[in-house]
Amino acid sequence: MDQQIIQLFINIVGEKNVKQSTAQLLAYSYDATANFQALPDLVLSPRNTEEISEILKICNEYKIPIVPRGSGSNLAAGTVPNQGGIILLFNHMNQIIDFDKENLTITVQPGMITADICNFVEKENLFYPPDPSSMKISTIGGNVSENSGGLRGLKYGVTKDYVKGLTAVLPNGEIIKTGGKLAKDVAGYDLTSLLVGSEGTLAVITEITLKLIPLPKYKMTSIAYFQSLEEAAKTVSAIIAHKIIPVTLEFLDKKTIDAVEQFMNIGLSTDVEAMLIFEQDGDLKQVEQDIKLMTEIAVKHGATFSKIANDESEAEQLKTARRVALSALSRLRPTTILEDATVPRSAIAEMVRRIDEIAEKYQLTIATFGHAGDGNLHPTCLTDVRDQEEIKRVELALEEIFEVALSLGGTITGEHGVGEMKAPYLEWKVGEAGIQLMKGLKAAFDPNNIMNPGKIFAKETKKRVVLQHV
Amino acid sequence: MDQQIIQLFINIVGEKNVKQSTAQLLAYSYDATANFQALPDLVLSPRNTEEISEILKICNEYKIPIVPRGSGSNLAAGTVPNQGGIILLFNHMNQIIDFDKENLTITVQPGMITADICNFVEKENLFYPPDPSSMKISTIGGNVSENSGGLRGLKYGVTKDYVKGLTAVLPNGEIIKTGGKLAKDVAGYDLTSLLVGSEGTLAVITEITLKLIPLPKYKMTSIAYFQSLEEAAKTVSAIIAHKIIPVTLEFLDKKTIDAVEQFMNIGLSTDVEAMLIFEQDGDLKQVEQDIKLMTEIAVKHGATFSKIANDESEAEQLKTARRVALSALSRLRPTTILEDATVPRSAIAEMVRRIDEIAEKYQLTIATFGHAGDGNLHPTCLTDVRDQEEIKRVELALEEIFEVALSLGGTITGEHGVGEMKAPYLEWKVGEAGIQLMKGLKAAFDPNNIMNPGKIFAKETKKRVVLQHV
Repeated sequence: MDQQIIQLFINIVGEKNVKQSTAQLLAYSYDATANFQALPDLVLSPRNTEEISEILKICNEYKIPIVPRGSGSNLAAGTVPNQGGIILLFNHMNQIIDFDKENLTITVQPGMITADICNFVEKENLFYPPDPSSMKISTIGGNVSENSGGLRGLKYGVTKDYVKGLTAVLPNGEIIKTGGKLAKDVAGYDLTSLLVGSEGTLAVITEITLKLIPLPKYKMTSIAYFQSLEEAAKTVSAIIAHKIIPVTLEFLDKKTIDAVEQFMNIGLSTDVEAMLIFEQDGDLKQVEQDIKLMTEIAVKHGATFSKIANDESEAEQLKTARRVALSALSRLRPTTILEDATVPRSAIAEMVRRIDEIAEKYQLTIATFGHAGDGNLHPTCLTDVRDQEEIKRVELALEEIFEVALSLGGTITGEHGVGEMKAPYLEWKVGEAGIQLMKGLKAAFDPNNIMNPGKIFAKETKKRVVLQHV
Repeated sequence: MDQQIIQLFINIVGEKNVKQSTAQLLAYSYDATANFQALPDLVLSPRNTEEISEILKICNEYKIPIVPRGSGSNLAAGTVPNQGGIILLFNHMNQIIDFDKENLTITVQPGMITADICNFVEKENLFYPPDPSSMKISTIGGNVSENSGGLRGLKYGVTKDYVKGLTAVLPNGEIIKTGGKLAKDVAGYDLTSLLVGSEGTLAVITEITLKLIPLPKYKMTSIAYFQSLEEAAKTVSAIIAHKIIPVTLEFLDKKTIDAVEQFMNIGLSTDVEAMLIFEQDGDLKQVEQDIKLMTEIAVKHGATFSKIANDESEAEQLKTARRVALSALSRLRPTTILEDATVPRSAIAEMVRRIDEIAEKYQLTIATFGHAGDGNLHPTCLTDVRDQEEIKRVELALEEIFEVALSLGGTITGEHGVGEMKAPYLEWKVGEAGIQLMKGLKAAFDPNNIMNPGKIFAKETKKRVVLQHV
């Protein structure tokens, strides 16, 4: 990058908020996604919305790519600067701007850590439900940009269900405000929802107003083991058919259970094929009733063992199995690729079976766990990026997994985003007309394509796999 | 319209699905909004998505305006064909396409009446919560296009919170599918949310997949009367501050109470300044507890009388007061203009007081009722369109009401939409950059501006009123 242009940025944010040494640039050349890396030209840490507006005006004038980045926990290479340019950090923009108990909202800067928001409002008996597994390190700005999900999605929805208003800077430097503290607002197109999940490709989000709800008074947890995937999946369907919507309804397959037990030694049964973890919250009587009924439904559908946690510490222990799943699996091989193919919940058993068949076909280790109640599975491929032949097989297997998910009425990504990694597959889900329309929306925001270019839209769509239907 | 072009449309939908007599055209020249009228050139009743695709291709080629219309209960002149062209009806597209108890979804055609959907799913102990006051006559397609609210919005949200997937025809005739039965989907931009509330200006929606939730088992209703607006408003804030989120929390001012009592003679107290109606649903114990606590809070904040309904029939009687409010008021003068200025709920008392001041300033009768819990008020101006001098004062008063709502952090429309009526005020809410951005989105969908032209965006923005702040 031209030294004169760098000086323009230094003039805006100050010398100490510009990183440009090779070591510093390397630190921002990758995110949590395996096998994607590219060096930025410059890393900037602005201090407020106005500085971001000034930065964007320069980027727009000189057509410099700009990639907003939270903690880089993205799993679809969404924050890798694959066309160079600027990485925009929010380390100076991590404060609470407003906490409004009358309207039940909190307004924060994008750099605030998600778990810190949850902890802050819980002290006031309020609740911000979206809980991506990365919440202890991820920023709320990243969550909003990716429309992050989490374990509590079944009952409480995902990030977009809680974003009520945004301040955002358009690529031309204009500052817009969308929505507000209002419960209802239909003044023009819903720009808030369009920006949520737009993966940093439309504008830079600089303030976020979140809806809060009363903190549920009680919660309870139980687990059940099964000798077959079908039994576990049928239990999930039967629970919903009984009109119970638990907070979480998580699934672990045998490979995941084995890995967790080897890692943590918490006493899980390893002679089973699947495990479900149930959690319910709310009024004590209702919670007890729902947990009891869910456990009964599990037993009726073949669960060989079930257990209701006696207290919060036992509940935490049971939930640990799910929380450490990814860490436990990632110990087994040098590279972990965590996917998020999602299907309607009625198709979970079919989806898990097909993933196992695909793993066998390509001779790969794929463990599956995830949010069964949402149909949001995490097939996790354990591999080694240094083995190019194996990585080729991984790529083919993932393509088949996307294809199967779509054939079951699902999607290529339930909560991780498209990023660079899944861009070649987006057309499989939304069709050519959908891609053209989305490109039109992108151009309306960002005619010079400076905002996180090379994400969501691929140069070339992958050919669809021809599946042998079983 | 050229006879040859009319013949092209006849070839698509068949002779009997084309209306073109003056009497027929007159019937579709207005909607529920006072003072707006314009004749269409043709009224078409297509039978399926493919016919709509063919119709749009012709409209796009010959640049013929096309206005999708449900039951015409719109209150912002959103379905008045102010540039002529085609009115598109959905009277042949009013069926349930799919009812999926495993995934808790129902997929319907846009012409289905909202209340019919509610009644259908309630038989299966499922619940579609959005309940606009017009639900017995409004179509779900209209509700989706307007992102309709309703009385249950406080606890359950609005239409957009329940739309999971859409089939839509773009102006170029391309058919797209957005979302699906999935609980989570982040594949590309959220086109579903963008189409919800787009007022027929982007695409024609032809299939709608709605999320359902379990039907709450119990509900209870209570009322409270107050001698001052402040006391009623403080009660609303205090209820939320006590972490109670009731299903409905409705407000009626003295003028509305008087009109209702004159109309229905149901025994309301008319020597009071305001009335609140509370409803809660859920588990019996929780419902009883919440209703009791809300009533206590009302009394603590000055309610002179409160009453918990003893049974469902008494509850219905209490709720009738709110349901008939508009009908009761509309009997008083020849023309009723129902507005939906919305503020954060903490600003309700201030907003109601300012509305009363504005009414006095312009010597108008404005009664106010509405969804207090949402901050969504319905100032209702009772007037006579034949009196041009009075109508001029009405217009000035409404402008001031919009201005005050915005100054309190509110919006120009909470649930009715912008349509033609509020288009001159949209810029007040979203700013010039917001308008330009929205116009860019519109152009990405509809470059020839055939979809419901002249709505949302005005030729000219009204100058903002200079308010004398009190």
